[in-house]
Amino acid sequence: MTISASSPVGIFDSGIGGLTVVKAIQSLLPSERIIYFGDTARVPYGSKSQVTIRKYAQDDTAILMKYQPKMIIVACNTVSSLALDVVQQVGKGVPVLGVLEAGAELAVKHSRNNRIGVIGTRATIASNAYSLAISAIDPDAEVFSSPCPLFVPLAEEGYIDHPASGMIAREYLEGLLVHGVDTLVLGCTHYPILRNMIEEIVGPDIAIIDSAEAVALRAKEVLVENNLLNDAGSVFPHLLVSDLPQKFKTLCELFLGRDIPDVELVDV
Amino acid sequence: MTISASSPVGIFDSGIGGLTVVKAIQSLLPSERIIYFGDTARVPYGSKSQVTIRKYAQDDTAILMKYQPKMIIVACNTVSSLALDVVQQVGKGVPVLGVLEAGAELAVKHSRNNRIGVIGTRATIASNAYSLAISAIDPDAEVFSSPCPLFVPLAEEGYIDHPASGMIAREYLEGLLVHGVDTLVLGCTHYPILRNMIEEIVGPDIAIIDSAEAVALRAKEVLVENNLLNDAGSVFPHLLVSDLPQKFKTLCELFLGRDIPDVELVDV
Repeated sequence: MTISASSPVGIFDSGIGGLTVVKAIQSLLPSERIIYFGDTARVPYGSKSQVTIRKYAQDDTAILMKYQPKMIIVACNTVSSLALDVVQQVGKGVPVLGVLEAGAELAVKHSRNNRIGVIGTRATIASNAYSLAISAIDPDAEVFSSPCPLFVPLAEEGYIDHPASGMIAREYLEGLLVHGVDTLVLGCTHYPILRNMIEEIVGPDIAIIDSAEAVALRAKEVLVENNLLNDAGSVFPHLLVSDLPQKFKTLCELFLGRDIPDVELVDV
Repeated sequence: MTISASSPVGIFDSGIGGLTVVKAIQSLLPSERIIYFGDTARVPYGSKSQVTIRKYAQDDTAILMKYQPKMIIVACNTVSSLALDVVQQVGKGVPVLGVLEAGAELAVKHSRNNRIGVIGTRATIASNAYSLAISAIDPDAEVFSSPCPLFVPLAEEGYIDHPASGMIAREYLEGLLVHGVDTLVLGCTHYPILRNMIEEIVGPDIAIIDSAEAVALRAKEVLVENNLLNDAGSVFPHLLVSDLPQKFKTLCELFLGRDIPDVELVDV
């Protein structure tokens, strides 16, 4: 397999949450060809076991590898936490970036008081992966985390500024605020959809780290380092999904901020 | 394959919501052996496409058929709406009952003004299957329906009497109340968990039809008709799942009202 600057950047997620990563990459690296796979037939991963998540990560990577990508971005925090090594194995030779590592790095850079909050799915938080990644970069940093399991369904249903979402979010975030964090990592690619609401609750003194933006920054660094930046001009991302739920069109618009392009259905 | 009174009753669902059916069967038919399969690796079905749902229904039925059941109960409203024929095909010769048909029948029996409300997942409601089933029994009945996509995550997170759930539920149910329904079908096996809250919102004049209870009543009738009632004495249900999520234990208690027994993991 030969990798060149014109090879695509492969991105996958458990569903369509990873489109926030697509959007961030498009905004930072508009000339890159993107191939995206969303495992919409088996979404969500966040509430499933590690064994199942690792099996799914293997399938997802294999699908992207058919397109000979120059880089694989794991847009799913759950897979980043529990199965990044699986992606590296299947994607032999191709640089693999996880949203989690990128988010952890950016959080450490931003924090002044070394008190970092992390929110994510149950599986991401239970894996303790953010704490480990942050401690590996800065052993003095203290990490406080809270699972927010209802944020994904609320985001997908468009409950973006609904009072019920605010009520639930306040309960989720309360505990973190008590610990005086000055930085909050959105450790799930769905959460940027709820960013305004979260910002309103935590107030202006807490820096929000969007792991989608963080991984886009890191992707640019890695492509520059390896002389693999593309300058072929903008193309619409190639989207693959394992199922086409009714709400896909609506959600695509919510995530990408524009109409849905052609989507290809693949079997898992 | 020989079916006898001592053969088990097979029940399946997309996840663990179908445990409300297990509970209803145990309460009405305490001597029946139950084999239950919950497809927890691929849950939820309600937001997926018909093609995917039919494929999953085939797998689920095949798993139960290995145990030579005397009856198969489709505890999943989504599968009942979109893939009951698939279950009948794979379960050749074994009587198949769907929660949907049973719920529709009981609703028609209860309604005095022929105005029936139905709530369920997006896929169940979009399939129009309840309206069709109810019209087939009573062509004069009018059906008003509302998808309640956040009820499953809210139930699974234990937001049973949380004010945010109440707020969301009121919005979902408002439209139905306007139409003056006198009967409301809980067209998803998760919804009985939220029954108290729903009852409070709709008031005492609207009869709630729990499709889990409805299918248990129908199962008893069919077993009696076929001389297949078991009287061997109570046994704990045999539970199979395709994944063991962290929250399974908690949820099992919520659904069955008791501690979790041994659970067997099967591959899908």
